Amino acid sequence: MKKKFLIASHGKLAAGLQSSLEILANKGKDVEIINAYLTEEDYTPKITAFIASVQSDEQGVIFTDLFGGSVNQKVVNQVLTAKKDNIFVISNTNLPIVLSLLLSPDDTLTRENITATIRDGQVTLLSLTLPTGKTDDLDAFF
Amino acid sequence: MKKKFLIASHGKLAAGLQSSLEILANKGKDVEIINAYLTEEDYTPKITAFIASVQSDEQGVIFTDLFGGSVNQKVVNQVLTAKKDNIFVISNTNLPIVLSLLLSPDDTLTRENITATIRDGQVTLLSLTLPTGKTDDLDAFF
Repeated sequence: MKKKFLIASHGKLAAGLQSSLEILANKGKDVEIINAYLTEEDYTPKITAFIASVQSDEQGVIFTDLFGGSVNQKVVNQVLTAKKDNIFVISNTNLPIVLSLLLSPDDTLTRENITATIRDGQVTLLSLTLPTGKTDDLDAFF
Repeated sequence: MKKKFLIASHGKLAAGLQSSLEILANKGKDVEIINAYLTEEDYTPKITAFIASVQSDEQGVIFTDLFGGSVNQKVVNQVLTAKKDNIFVISNTNLPIVLSLLLSPDDTLTRENITATIRDGQVTLLSLTLPTGKTDDLDAFF
């Protein structure tokens, strides 16, 4: 099943994620982006155009930067208005979730596999104590 | 206690986060950034310079893009080599964790409060079903 991806953020975070996707996996061109509030331009039409572009036999994922923030609210509002159940919205996006969904081998995304994927790539405070106590044994860490 | 912040990423994700921090909270200047692999330049000296800049009566936080990725590995390696316990390393960074730690009212960051802050801003798949079933009642959602 064809999947379409949009990243929407305050400022250039969306472009930044796209740049990282390109460097890590040559996948920058596989996402559309909205860098909101850099100008006064209303970005709502870009959201609605993306939603409209997702056909009934396709799936869409919209990654937003901050739960409760303006961009996220606008995206949620537009998805609810469109009444499409084949579009997922993710908030508090990080690089691993975008990368994993872009590279997903699953033909169809489900809430269950997205949730599992999120769990595997959550934000983490690292514990910098090596199991062996040796600072030169990084293989033990990763 | 003075806190210093560094965001390090493959590509321009670090700059993107900085741009979002500036737009949302006028905090772009409060973070240093490393956008790695845009050129062939070795970025290790920038990491070591940041680590060296964190005095013993200060705290440092390094936000990295992807657990196990090159940038994250290099940061971990340098922090372990420096043997400083006043520097925290976070992987799979998203905007909420950077924003929350930059705006934290706590004088001193601890593993406990960072972990709690991470938990509050984790990556989330939104459930776009309004409690009331009405799509025009967004107040019920946020």
